[in-house]
Amino acid sequence: MLVLHQMQMSGNCYKVRLAARQLGIPLVLKEYPLHDGQTRKPDFLAKNPNGRVPMLEFEDGRTLPESDAIIWYLAEGSLLAPESKWDRAQALSWMFFEQYSHEPYIAVARFWLKFAAKEELAKKQHLVAEWHEKGNAALGVMNTHLSKHDWFGGSRYSIADIALYGYTHSAADGGFNLASYPAVTKWLARVAAEHGHIPLAESW
Amino acid sequence: MLVLHQMQMSGNCYKVRLAARQLGIPLVLKEYPLHDGQTRKPDFLAKNPNGRVPMLEFEDGRTLPESDAIIWYLAEGSLLAPESKWDRAQALSWMFFEQYSHEPYIAVARFWLKFAAKEELAKKQHLVAEWHEKGNAALGVMNTHLSKHDWFGGSRYSIADIALYGYTHSAADGGFNLASYPAVTKWLARVAAEHGHIPLAESW
Repeated sequence: MLVLHQMQMSGNCYKVRLAARQLGIPLVLKEYPLHDGQTRKPDFLAKNPNGRVPMLEFEDGRTLPESDAIIWYLAEGSLLAPESKWDRAQALSWMFFEQYSHEPYIAVARFWLKFAAKEELAKKQHLVAEWHEKGNAALGVMNTHLSKHDWFGGSRYSIADIALYGYTHSAADGGFNLASYPAVTKWLARVAAEHGHIPLAESW
Repeated sequence: MLVLHQMQMSGNCYKVRLAARQLGIPLVLKEYPLHDGQTRKPDFLAKNPNGRVPMLEFEDGRTLPESDAIIWYLAEGSLLAPESKWDRAQALSWMFFEQYSHEPYIAVARFWLKFAAKEELAKKQHLVAEWHEKGNAALGVMNTHLSKHDWFGGSRYSIADIALYGYTHSAADGGFNLASYPAVTKWLARVAAEHGHIPLAESW
């Protein structure tokens, strides 16, 4: 059985649980406590030298880090994979956008504002304005796309939508006002209505 | 003919020129001056609302941003594409690693230390230590992998190597000492010896 090394509250880990559930792929979850640094210890680093979850571990011991690479792997050949060469390129373009222009602001703001101790947040307070500026820019880019398209990876729901849903649906936790992005709000509802959808908090 | 909207000095744009050259795909280059903000003006934003290069433009007007999505698209079905489902997952994992854990430190350090005006760099000086710490961590992760493997996307040279070469080969510009990473240094030489390789500065 596949083992997902994860933190339940992480949107990146949620992407993998959501895709696996919709694909009917069973996972064993190995949970890492948020603040205890287990992913930076030698046992974990031997499996992923970058010291991060999510990481997927196969029965033969192979390991695969990076949320978007994991969901790409799990979905290959399924209805969650983009259909054509052009759709694959679009999906990847949005998945790289998410990791470079969206997650570093929207997920990071959520982490510090919702999960960090107050005295730790105080050390990051000077960064909040930049997280909000750049995170709002990313939400604006998504809203522009969704004003003309239903989905991110072609003409149907795909792993590109799962990748962007992971942290967009919980952006309010980081102080973002999703009501300012009506096309995003409608898309969030479409994603949540897909067959087999599970919320972030659902235990596996 | 495909048009690559680009900045010659950008490692992300270099990835596209290098892959296209090795694939025998002709490109027309449209150069954007480094500091004049053209990519944030309405004409450009209509093509890429995220306001960034590289962006590939097709004859029918379609546009594709994000360096790694572009080289994935150009390479599909060629010898530069990873061979198997597992190799594709590995390649994508490293390409997402590059955009999340490598480029934001190694490329950003290079930009500010080599290309920014001194008075602008002064405003960023307090960030240099973090760029170096996290960039060195990324080079260490690469060196660990390359101590056991020749390439990043399976058993042959692929777009995953091109993606990581883009900013690794010029890391010294950002104050990194590549001699500390012997497996990386040997891999850089292997990449540069591949048929059809071009340096970053080569005009198309």
